[in-house]
Amino acid sequence: MKDLVGSPGTWSSLVLRVSQCLCAAATLVAMDTARGYSYSAYSLLFITMLFQLLWSFLLACLDIYLLRTNLDLRHDHVTVSMFLCIDTVFALLAWTSASASAGVTILLDRDVHFCEAFPHLSCGVYKLFVILAFMAWSFTAASAYSMFWLLVSLLG
Amino acid sequence: MKDLVGSPGTWSSLVLRVSQCLCAAATLVAMDTARGYSYSAYSLLFITMLFQLLWSFLLACLDIYLLRTNLDLRHDHVTVSMFLCIDTVFALLAWTSASASAGVTILLDRDVHFCEAFPHLSCGVYKLFVILAFMAWSFTAASAYSMFWLLVSLLG
Repeated sequence: MKDLVGSPGTWSSLVLRVSQCLCAAATLVAMDTARGYSYSAYSLLFITMLFQLLWSFLLACLDIYLLRTNLDLRHDHVTVSMFLCIDTVFALLAWTSASASAGVTILLDRDVHFCEAFPHLSCGVYKLFVILAFMAWSFTAASAYSMFWLLVSLLG
Repeated sequence: MKDLVGSPGTWSSLVLRVSQCLCAAATLVAMDTARGYSYSAYSLLFITMLFQLLWSFLLACLDIYLLRTNLDLRHDHVTVSMFLCIDTVFALLAWTSASASAGVTILLDRDVHFCEAFPHLSCGVYKLFVILAFMAWSFTAASAYSMFWLLVSLLG
C-alpha cells in the first residue's frame, strides 16, 4: 500500500495536488481576464474551479504536513472514504462544467460565428480556460482514482 | 455473484438495457422533431445517442438470449471487461454531450435570450431532449457500475 501513487502523505499526492492548484488558479486568472461574457456555463466553471483550488490547496498543505511529520493517514478508511467522496464530486463537477463551457465556446466560435461578429468577445481566452479546466479535471480524476484503489486495498 | 443487480443475463440487466434503449430512442425522436438548430453540441449528442441505442439494443437481445438458454457469461472475465469498457465509454460520452447540450440550451434560453427573440427555435424540445439524455446516461452508468463490481468480484 505504501507505494500506491497518489496516496495521502506521499510526494506523488503532493505533485497531483499542486498540479490541481496550478490548473485551477490558471483557469480562474484566464476567466478573470476574459471580457464580454456572463454565461451560466462559465459561471459554473468559475465557482467549481474556485472550490477546487481551495480543496486542493488544503490537501497540498496536509500532504506537506504528513511528509514532514511522517504521520500515516493511509490506514484510516474513514478519512480515505471522505477524500474519495470529495475528490469524486469535484471531478464530476469539473468535467460537467468544462464540457458545458466547451459546448458554449464551440457554439460561439463555430456555430453562430459570434467570435467574428463581436470582436470584443475574448474567444481565444475562452478556449484557453476550457483546456485548463480539462487539465484540472484530469489531475482531480487521478487523485480520486488513487483514493478509490487505496480504499479497495484497505477494505479488501 | 448470482444476485448482483445488472449482471448480463439477469432480468435487472434487461430492464436497464431496455430503459437505455427507450431513453436514447426518445432523445433521438425529440431531436428529430426540434427545429432551427445546427449546433455542434447537439450533433455530438445525436451521434452518441444513436450508438447508445444500437449498443443497448444489442445487449438487450443478448440478455433475452441468455435468459432463454440459461447460459452464464458472468464468469467470463474477458467478456465482462469488454462490456465494462464499452459501457464506461458510452457513459462518459453521454455525460459529456448532455452537459455540453445543457450548457448550450441554458445559453440560448437564459443568457442571450434567443428563445424569446427567435420563436422558431424549439427551446422546449431542446430542454426535453437534454433531460432524456441525462436519463439515458443514468441507466448506462448503472450498467457500467454493475459490470465494474462484477469484474472486481471475478478477479478478487
